Amino acid sequence: MPDQTMPTLHDIISARPHVNRFLKPTPLYHYATLSELVGAQVWIKHENHQPIGAFKVRGGLNLAANLDLAARRAGLFTASTGNHGQSIAFAARAFGIKATIAAPEGANPGKVAAMRGLGAKVVLHGSDFDAAREWIMDVAEEQGGHFIGPTDEPLIHGVGTYALEILETLPDVQTIIVPVGAGSGVCGTSIVAKSINPHIQVFGAQSSQAPAMQRSWQAGEMLTAPMHTFAEGIATRVPFANTQRIMGHYLDDFLLASDEEIEQAIVLHLQHTHNLAEGAGAVALAVALKYKERLAGKKVVLVLSGGNLALERLYQIFNKYGANLPTFSPIIR
Amino acid sequence: MPDQTMPTLHDIISARPHVNRFLKPTPLYHYATLSELVGAQVWIKHENHQPIGAFKVRGGLNLAANLDLAARRAGLFTASTGNHGQSIAFAARAFGIKATIAAPEGANPGKVAAMRGLGAKVVLHGSDFDAAREWIMDVAEEQGGHFIGPTDEPLIHGVGTYALEILETLPDVQTIIVPVGAGSGVCGTSIVAKSINPHIQVFGAQSSQAPAMQRSWQAGEMLTAPMHTFAEGIATRVPFANTQRIMGHYLDDFLLASDEEIEQAIVLHLQHTHNLAEGAGAVALAVALKYKERLAGKKVVLVLSGGNLALERLYQIFNKYGANLPTFSPIIR
Repeated sequence: MPDQTMPTLHDIISARPHVNRFLKPTPLYHYATLSELVGAQVWIKHENHQPIGAFKVRGGLNLAANLDLAARRAGLFTASTGNHGQSIAFAARAFGIKATIAAPEGANPGKVAAMRGLGAKVVLHGSDFDAAREWIMDVAEEQGGHFIGPTDEPLIHGVGTYALEILETLPDVQTIIVPVGAGSGVCGTSIVAKSINPHIQVFGAQSSQAPAMQRSWQAGEMLTAPMHTFAEGIATRVPFANTQRIMGHYLDDFLLASDEEIEQAIVLHLQHTHNLAEGAGAVALAVALKYKERLAGKKVVLVLSGGNLALERLYQIFNKYGANLPTFSPIIR
Repeated sequence: MPDQTMPTLHDIISARPHVNRFLKPTPLYHYATLSELVGAQVWIKHENHQPIGAFKVRGGLNLAANLDLAARRAGLFTASTGNHGQSIAFAARAFGIKATIAAPEGANPGKVAAMRGLGAKVVLHGSDFDAAREWIMDVAEEQGGHFIGPTDEPLIHGVGTYALEILETLPDVQTIIVPVGAGSGVCGTSIVAKSINPHIQVFGAQSSQAPAMQRSWQAGEMLTAPMHTFAEGIATRVPFANTQRIMGHYLDDFLLASDEEIEQAIVLHLQHTHNLAEGAGAVALAVALKYKERLAGKKVVLVLSGGNLALERLYQIFNKYGANLPTFSPIIR
């Protein structure tokens, strides 16, 4: 039994009115040809259909809705490689709050443009997420503003609302596979799924080229790990303690796929679902294909967490696979 | 004033309960960087987010809902290059009706696979849509079943429901640009827009490599035209009389873009909206860029009618443009 300080199903249900004030539920669609490929009944939760192209917008809206007037006036400060920053920028605009976001130099330029398009002030600082984060925390303190960490609890409560939608659309789901970056999505999903039906399996998914969260979960202690994945949405070098604590209670397994397998899953998403997935968005499909024997015949939901892939990267992937794109011909049932 | 036999706003409002029984409204999103490119306030109506990846599913559901029991028992027969057939297959499955669909040989294999995945019997017959259509009409008559033409009125009523959603989300829309194949989408849109606010401009959009509907609309008579576009969703060789009649009353203009401009618009959709558009789905953006001086500063909705592009075609497009992909760097606002 988790201790009382952990987020609960009630926290997530309480977030829903705030989320639904601005967002519509996203589709959960069954795909016949993907199901054939995986050997299971495969459903995709289309968080890439959100207005910012990623699930994180749910969390930002819930966080902003719960701030008091003084905190709103002082403004929001955060660090992000992209989707979290877009979420905070979107929420700040919705509530008329000023947002300042630090992104590492070399961040996905489309995501930076999108944050700016939403009205946020974006400052490129430092070589990776952690460097940007340390810098902006100091700025926030100097300016008396509210610093938002990527796993702050109101974010977990907000993003967990997509899991409520999954359970309501497909109550007999047996396995849910969730991409893990900082862990807010997988924590929200685990809390909802296990509270409603403890038999539902929840698997985390990450790149083997950035396995800090997976190794920490396996070891039961906080371990950093090398971070070389192209998929910035799941590129974690330093694990997060509060999400690890929740994952330690709830998660059934945590699976890894290589960057190459993730790239192939991006192609398969284009082919079979006609959706553009970013690396983080495709990793659930990558591990489902890699560990298909564990899913045989089951009702499986793969969370397509985001679609914000840079065009340059898609072009590189196509060049890499050339005419040998994986399972190039559609499967006829 | 249109004559009394034309579909009305009331017909489309009456279709909505049937459509909404199975489908959720699709998003209408504003895109900052696309707006910059076009020089207007650009919104995309995401009909590619429908369960079959295209707007037509609305029409099939309304048609099936309005059939009497005898017609349901006799089964549905139609011809399609893809999305219309998926719509009929989806509706048939929803209502437990048998569906038989003729597609031309060489039809988009992903669309054929999807129709079969939805449970329809698909027969490949003839070299183009019209050949497949003539054949399946005979089959339907032999078997006593209901033949569905691509512009049957219940289809127009059903697909018009997306225009209701546009008007409700963005009541001050000034221009709506709609891809035209057989014309059901543009007719539904015109009827809704003009009935609610005659000042809203509605433009049709087609490929200059298959301009039969455009030429017929311009001439005010039924003209066939060469058909060489890759975009099967807007590839019409023989115009349709009932949709031409409606378009003659309502349409403000009908613009053409080349296949090359449509291909570039597919790339721009991937870059700026992170959505895969098929040729028909991208043609509204292609004409918006080509005729941007006519849209300057306006609130413009582009209908992204479908996303069912074959992976092979996307690969060809990337190969064709190589490193010179149009406006490759994101626009920073």
